[in-house]
Amino acid sequence: MSGTAGETNNLLLAITHWPSGPWVKRFSELLPERRCVAERAGIDPASIGYAAAWKHEPGAFAGLPNLKAVFSLGAGVDHLFRDQHLPDVPLIRIVDPDLTLRMGEWVALHVLRYHREYDRYAAQQKQALWRENYDQPAAREVRVGILGLGVLGQHAARVLGTIGFDLAGWSRSPREVPGIACFAGDKELPAFLARTDILVCLLPLTPDTRGILNRDLFSKLARDGRIAGPVVLNAGRGGLQVESDIVACLDDGTLAAATLDVFETEPLSPSSALWLHPRVSITPHNSAMSAPEAVARQVAEQIRRFEAGLPLENLVDRDAGY
Amino acid sequence: MSGTAGETNNLLLAITHWPSGPWVKRFSELLPERRCVAERAGIDPASIGYAAAWKHEPGAFAGLPNLKAVFSLGAGVDHLFRDQHLPDVPLIRIVDPDLTLRMGEWVALHVLRYHREYDRYAAQQKQALWRENYDQPAAREVRVGILGLGVLGQHAARVLGTIGFDLAGWSRSPREVPGIACFAGDKELPAFLARTDILVCLLPLTPDTRGILNRDLFSKLARDGRIAGPVVLNAGRGGLQVESDIVACLDDGTLAAATLDVFETEPLSPSSALWLHPRVSITPHNSAMSAPEAVARQVAEQIRRFEAGLPLENLVDRDAGY
Repeated sequence: MSGTAGETNNLLLAITHWPSGPWVKRFSELLPERRCVAERAGIDPASIGYAAAWKHEPGAFAGLPNLKAVFSLGAGVDHLFRDQHLPDVPLIRIVDPDLTLRMGEWVALHVLRYHREYDRYAAQQKQALWRENYDQPAAREVRVGILGLGVLGQHAARVLGTIGFDLAGWSRSPREVPGIACFAGDKELPAFLARTDILVCLLPLTPDTRGILNRDLFSKLARDGRIAGPVVLNAGRGGLQVESDIVACLDDGTLAAATLDVFETEPLSPSSALWLHPRVSITPHNSAMSAPEAVARQVAEQIRRFEAGLPLENLVDRDAGY
Repeated sequence: MSGTAGETNNLLLAITHWPSGPWVKRFSELLPERRCVAERAGIDPASIGYAAAWKHEPGAFAGLPNLKAVFSLGAGVDHLFRDQHLPDVPLIRIVDPDLTLRMGEWVALHVLRYHREYDRYAAQQKQALWRENYDQPAAREVRVGILGLGVLGQHAARVLGTIGFDLAGWSRSPREVPGIACFAGDKELPAFLARTDILVCLLPLTPDTRGILNRDLFSKLARDGRIAGPVVLNAGRGGLQVESDIVACLDDGTLAAATLDVFETEPLSPSSALWLHPRVSITPHNSAMSAPEAVARQVAEQIRRFEAGLPLENLVDRDAGY
């Protein structure tokens, strides 16, 4: 059993779905005066002062008498709440400029891919076919709607606005974002959807938003756009979407296409109908990957602030769920 | 023979490679008091005061005694100079925000496609393979170099900068563009190339730039980048590139990939090796299509300004060739 008597500031990393090695290495560099471990075996539970988690095993943080805070290592904190034994300590979201920028890249790539018909030209190339679409609309003629106007949604709006798209955003509670038409709450959702050709979902997963991307919502999207739409992009959480509705809506024409980075179950089962659907694009939950380099620095800085007597930032509101 | 005696303000549209119908229609709406025609047959040559051209047949503007100006309908004016019989009248470039924005869309799409390995994930999807690249760099770790810092290059820089790329630009004569490292002239070209992972060519075609995208230039691009590079994108003009060098450099590893919107001969011959090269992407010269809606408005406004006694704007410098 390691951990000097009286030590209470070690860091436990509880990570699944990602390799934990780079995180242990990076945290050990940033916090060399304490132990940063990915396993509880071999370390005194009383010596653990902090935990950092990505999709941890439920119960991983039980029986840690000196635990002071749990940090989420990726965007979103819904993974923490799957744990019925989550200790009653502060939970901290990651708000990292690196992660925000990466999400902006993913959103811009996939919105532009539909707008500029990349897949069509790639298919034409295979036939050595030189054929333009003289009816190609400009970005300002294409209406993109962003579901979720937090840090990620606002940055995506900035990128898409610079490119020139006609933007609107929707959030649960009213927000004002310069340069985009803002809608809020259940009441304004239909109006937002009715003016949206390409829907970009960047919502947090909460009891309120679970399953929001369903047939009812898809059926309210615009059907009079300049592009072949409506199109749905989801880089929020898999729990936001009803995958059986997505497949059915693609097949009956309610949706023209979907690009999904997140899934009800991850990794996506090899038997899912989504993989080979001709109008679905899949990325393996990498829209905004947490880079240990950047994210570990944020967490280490928070730990140092806290130990210097300053308050923790980006606290999760347990009632709101994010 | 039509055209009232004394009329000298009609508009001749000399367009090949594009359908001329939408242009005739749009100009006729904007300039209803004069004739806008796509054929010289049936109209008094002396009644033609203006010409608007896209890849016109050489000689199309000879024998028009009252011609006052020739407008280019697309980005670039090199197509005008292929005509040995081009009359000695002012030549006018199009500087259209719509065209500029469209080019920004194309550049962002294809830079992001390489940066985020879209083709790799599309291939993985076909195998139902869930596999992330944990080494995915952030945009700030990828060096994009823009050849040509005119209106198009500067807008592309604005878009790519908002996304987060590490940008530099090169122009023949020195320029300052906020937020990007600027290089100029032959002397600084090697330093610019040495820090470039993704090269975006938006140069005009002039005697100085013809064939600039050749093996010598490709061999000076960075080979130590965070992405699989170097990558070349050309949306300037086909005459800027040496296609045999592109194929040879892709095959011997000097280049990792290329996306081309323009070609030495257009349409690209069905027998070109570029079509089926696994690391070439082709778009059919549609990166920034001139929309009759927007471009015709610009030309019509210039004609009205000129007839009101104001000077023509965006004049071509015949010596510089753009």
